[in-house]
Amino acid sequence: MNSLRARAHLLFGRRSHQSLAPHQHLSPAVANDLVISTVDENSGIAMLTMNRPPANSLSMEMNEAICDSIKTIEANAKIQSVILSSTNPKIFSAGLDVTELVSPDKDRLPRFWNSLQQVYIDLYGSRLATVAAIQGHAPAAGCFLAMACDYRVMSAGDINSDTKKKHVPTIGLNETQLGIAAPPWMGQLLVRTVGFRQAELALALGTLFPPEQALAVGLVDDIVPHQKAESGEDQLIDLLPSQIKDQALNPLLQRAYSQARIYAKIPPQARVASKMVTREEHIFRMIAKRDEDTQHFCGFVTQKAVQKNLSAYVEALKNKSAKK
Amino acid sequence: MNSLRARAHLLFGRRSHQSLAPHQHLSPAVANDLVISTVDENSGIAMLTMNRPPANSLSMEMNEAICDSIKTIEANAKIQSVILSSTNPKIFSAGLDVTELVSPDKDRLPRFWNSLQQVYIDLYGSRLATVAAIQGHAPAAGCFLAMACDYRVMSAGDINSDTKKKHVPTIGLNETQLGIAAPPWMGQLLVRTVGFRQAELALALGTLFPPEQALAVGLVDDIVPHQKAESGEDQLIDLLPSQIKDQALNPLLQRAYSQARIYAKIPPQARVASKMVTREEHIFRMIAKRDEDTQHFCGFVTQKAVQKNLSAYVEALKNKSAKK
Amino acid sequence: MNSLRARAHLLFGRRSHQSLAPHQHLSPAVANDLVISTVDENSGIAMLTMNRPPANSLSMEMNEAICDSIKTIEANAKIQSVILSSTNPKIFSAGLDVTELVSPDKDRLPRFWNSLQQVYIDLYGSRLATVAAIQGHAPAAGCFLAMACDYRVMSAGDINSDTKKKHVPTIGLNETQLGIAAPPWMGQLLVRTVGFRQAELALALGTLFPPEQALAVGLVDDIVPHQKAESGEDQLIDLLPSQIKDQALNPLLQRAYSQARIYAKIPPQARVASKMVTREEHIFRMIAKRDEDTQHFCGFVTQKAVQKNLSAYVEALKNKSAKK
Repeated sequence: MNSLRARAHLLFGRRSHQSLAPHQHLSPAVANDLVISTVDENSGIAMLTMNRPPANSLSMEMNEAICDSIKTIEANAKIQSVILSSTNPKIFSAGLDVTELVSPDKDRLPRFWNSLQQVYIDLYGSRLATVAAIQGHAPAAGCFLAMACDYRVMSAGDINSDTKKKHVPTIGLNETQLGIAAPPWMGQLLVRTVGFRQAELALALGTLFPPEQALAVGLVDDIVPHQKAESGEDQLIDLLPSQIKDQALNPLLQRAYSQARIYAKIPPQARVASKMVTREEHIFRMIAKRDEDTQHFCGFVTQKAVQKNLSAYVEALKNKSAKK
Repeated sequence: MNSLRARAHLLFGRRSHQSLAPHQHLSPAVANDLVISTVDENSGIAMLTMNRPPANSLSMEMNEAICDSIKTIEANAKIQSVILSSTNPKIFSAGLDVTELVSPDKDRLPRFWNSLQQVYIDLYGSRLATVAAIQGHAPAAGCFLAMACDYRVMSAGDINSDTKKKHVPTIGLNETQLGIAAPPWMGQLLVRTVGFRQAELALALGTLFPPEQALAVGLVDDIVPHQKAESGEDQLIDLLPSQIKDQALNPLLQRAYSQARIYAKIPPQARVASKMVTREEHIFRMIAKRDEDTQHFCGFVTQKAVQKNLSAYVEALKNKSAKK
Repeated sequence: MNSLRARAHLLFGRRSHQSLAPHQHLSPAVANDLVISTVDENSGIAMLTMNRPPANSLSMEMNEAICDSIKTIEANAKIQSVILSSTNPKIFSAGLDVTELVSPDKDRLPRFWNSLQQVYIDLYGSRLATVAAIQGHAPAAGCFLAMACDYRVMSAGDINSDTKKKHVPTIGLNETQLGIAAPPWMGQLLVRTVGFRQAELALALGTLFPPEQALAVGLVDDIVPHQKAESGEDQLIDLLPSQIKDQALNPLLQRAYSQARIYAKIPPQARVASKMVTREEHIFRMIAKRDEDTQHFCGFVTQKAVQKNLSAYVEALKNKSAKK
């Protein structure tokens, strides 16, 4: 076996195993509950719930919490699938935390970027089958998180029973709308997901797709109409963290759970080997080009013109927030 | 001309030519008729009929017979297209002969794998236009044989006139269902055929597609309803080996024949050069990584866990066969 | 920044800027108006109109005129989008000028091929957003010109009000029909545009797609029914060269113009960076393999069999032309 394959074994989960009691709720891997991990050894399914209010934006600590949670779940040999979800029903993840980018600390900026690269390596290259349950918006790096999974289910939208206001989530790499560009590896993940032609168009225009259109181009694999299920898979409730314990009949989570079960029944060794067929080369390319990618990103984001755009964007966010 | 292009000329059929009389039926290239080759120089079309009962499974000898037949047909400069079919109306090819994999002989195993790699090189890289006539099931390496052709027509299914039982063929790389994984080059051929996203899903789940779904994802190019044609292209009968001489009006074979004619009318030099545009790099990659691929496969298949899965599978096949 | 990225900055338009007066009509970059360039700095949109009767076929001088026009427009920092169109309503471009290929001068042939490679580098790698307005036929290298743009709108066809004769344009790499093959980089551009499977089929058969089919496979992004708009974007008329000044309400040009406006509103730095994500590696591959590609092409086209096919084709064109 050559060294590349040896490294693949490291990537795709030939890690040491440790057993956990059934239904044991793992403590979040880092302090302050940025990510809540739960596991059910009976079904072989885990849930990784993002919980960084208000928008699950990806700070360095959030990236690290995601990676730590994946590694902790992977260490449990009884777990084969994981559902990636959010405690916020309106936002899956808003993408990068822009405060990491505006007037950045020179030492922290490359470390922040490294933590995002690590999410790509650990999530896209996980030995676990990964299912994204996209209930709310997933712009920019939020879309990236979803694309790095094995399967994506998206809510078709929701109507607030009190206000009658409709919420329809969107997903896409909309970076150009903010005056920046998705990094090459993130853009190329979109190419693989929706094909070269649709990706090129969407990257240039910064398209955010509503559910039906996301399904049509292949950016998500299934969309789930919002109407409370009357019954569903009973075991889902065991996985739900306390913050969303009332969501046991949420049709999106039910659909994500049933897909996670389908994956959990495939012989794991074979499933992981099939994942290597399509993902191995991309993970290795990231590892090989990591420093170059970091230098390029840091050079791009510290340009005056880019800083100006980002400052204006943060200002607009603050004003919007103050008005509420 | 650099050496890569020189090698491409070797691959894509700049071989020495030898003339054969019209309608001459070639003897199969190896003993016991594993593959039956027939040619019609008037139309420029040949037929390569797999004939290894019960399931055209790919033993080393079967792989060698396929390669020998392709080379013999290619040596005839008057032939431009070949139809790949089966004498068994219910099975195109069941894939690898699992008896090659269970408790394998250490000397034979790498030779067996080399013979499969050679099928990829010779069939995917043939100078001939290749049309797969998929009447019966094509799982695993049976699906690979079809994907290595230039065009795939598939039967929509058939009803037995006596028993009224319906037969609907399926196609796909279902290896994960057996606890193994398709080799990377076979998985990547699926990526090229149906696109990255659908391939990744199908590889993980081991999906077998019925005809309509196979057409929808692009795994086959056309499906043919089963209703005996009243008339058809008369020359087809000249190509049919004695075992299936009664199939002259079989609508699937008629459709495959008409597609073979379309290809045979394209100026061959131009058609072969266009094939190099998309396939050359993949053939060269196989040649360059051949030994590595063999070592990886032999290492994978001789693992205890994999041997256990395969033994259980063979046992199940035997029991199923004994019940009949 | 490494040298590849430095070269990308050269390619994707970090060239020196020079200002032009609004609505100033640039002189065509070469003599005899092979290509007519016009710019409107207010909207940030330019138009590059091919004008080499009868068929905009690509001679060395035509290729050079296209490249010079692109560079001149790129030098104007106020311009973000360009529309590529034709003065001939029935022909976008007929592809390579075959008189360059028949009994070619040995010194000129490689220079001719280099000029076509340069069109690929300059058009596919332009910092400008490029919209092809395909009113007439676009076979072979005419299809290539369209594919090298960022967006393609195609006329659904037209009925001559006098003769009642219908004109329906077609598009595709139909080289095999003429006994030649598209060069690898042109074939691979088709792969990226319509996907591997459809490209492989179309390359082998030399398929010319009518508008509806071109849209279905993704070879064009939009088709425009022919019915004169009653009103449209007023500024379009400023861009139209005198030869087609009467086309201000042409629905195809109106549609191309509105798409060019959409692109012009994206922050340019971000839009160009997103274009690098998908195109950079292909431009660099062309630069790296340029000499090899030229040698291969010159070797191919000077073969006796190919010269015979091309001579017959030119003769047929002459006879067809004489009959009119």
